[in-house]
Amino acid sequence: MDGLRYTDRTRVRRLPERGTREWPAVAAILDEALVCHVGFVVDGAPVVIPTAHVRRGTTLYLHGAPSSRMLRIAAGGVEVCITATILDGLVLARSLFHHSLNYRSAVCFGRASEVTDLDEKEAALRCFAEHVLPGRAAEVRPPARGELMATRVLAVQLDEASAKVRGGPPKDDDEDLALPVWAGVLPVHLVLQPPVADTPELPQPESVRRAPSLPRFAAGVAASDVENMA
Amino acid sequence: MDGLRYTDRTRVRRLPERGTREWPAVAAILDEALVCHVGFVVDGAPVVIPTAHVRRGTTLYLHGAPSSRMLRIAAGGVEVCITATILDGLVLARSLFHHSLNYRSAVCFGRASEVTDLDEKEAALRCFAEHVLPGRAAEVRPPARGELMATRVLAVQLDEASAKVRGGPPKDDDEDLALPVWAGVLPVHLVLQPPVADTPELPQPESVRRAPSLPRFAAGVAASDVENMA
Repeated sequence: MDGLRYTDRTRVRRLPERGTREWPAVAAILDEALVCHVGFVVDGAPVVIPTAHVRRGTTLYLHGAPSSRMLRIAAGGVEVCITATILDGLVLARSLFHHSLNYRSAVCFGRASEVTDLDEKEAALRCFAEHVLPGRAAEVRPPARGELMATRVLAVQLDEASAKVRGGPPKDDDEDLALPVWAGVLPVHLVLQPPVADTPELPQPESVRRAPSLPRFAAGVAASDVENMA
Repeated sequence: MDGLRYTDRTRVRRLPERGTREWPAVAAILDEALVCHVGFVVDGAPVVIPTAHVRRGTTLYLHGAPSSRMLRIAAGGVEVCITATILDGLVLARSLFHHSLNYRSAVCFGRASEVTDLDEKEAALRCFAEHVLPGRAAEVRPPARGELMATRVLAVQLDEASAKVRGGPPKDDDEDLALPVWAGVLPVHLVLQPPVADTPELPQPESVRRAPSLPRFAAGVAASDVENMA
């Protein structure tokens, strides 16, 4: 993609130095996040619903049951806002005022269109499984035609989006630096616990054995790395 | 609180057996989550922005710089939707179709009002720090009057909300149970990494030493516990 459209609503207003409209930053956040939050408007009021997503090129896919209200409304082509956020750390400053969180977020605006071609729907469903766990799609029973019919898949073109990142240490006031108050960052990240098998008689497949080394579950983003992203 | 109002928009439409409008379920999710997503409407279109939050009784507080567009618009008393989601696991079914995520989410509707009383603002700021890390507020320099003036605090009454939980093992079709496909759940949870001190000369305070044992960072929610919540 040549780049994202620079619209007024993707301009990061507060602390613009933490914002970016560079496509790789947006794509990386969408790819690491397992859940996004979809905003839409019902009777003039906002509704925000969490759901899984997957990015394929410059398309973001959503999916679910046809009876999902969120998918039904979004399929009508109304405006949606899709936001994914990854928490990276607790920022503990010397003053209460400067306490913060380290995070990376992507905010995407667009209109969804429904994917009706069954081959494209099946490809999208494979992408969802691969997004959650690479290698998984090839290990399982593929979708039957009836299952594809019973799944609504939406596609949103990602051309109007921005990312915002807060990383690194607390930013204390100069006059607070000499206070005898411990300050620093407590980095956080998602980890996997041991699998809870539904099929204890079967060996763990490669996708499961490899899962702990996926970037989103690996040693976590070092504070220095996050700082470099900001 | 006697209970949440049962309105049409807090009715869980899709898989209603996973939904609840019981207050303790909503409160527990808001208390464990460190980030929420605030939806509001600008020029008829939805905007979803992540932010920190804290619950105090039946009030949800948001805060930030007065220049934050989200806070400025929300302070005007428009409708907002505040959603917090905790990811609990990857649900790996025998079929691609039944892959899912285990999660707990709370969706809250309301209108914000701005907190202008400085004592109430200071109390709210202490709550934010205590929500992130219990014991922290007493360890740090308290807010100066100028800092309170430079912070916008919003309060949303939590009387219209619902929670939704997906827990437990994959739900495969009966005819798939004999397939030689490993199925199960990969539980996930947030963990703390070692602190990155900005003040290496000072000992870690009690809040930091206790942090790894906070419920949200502890051993994680067992799949069996999640199942019991559903």
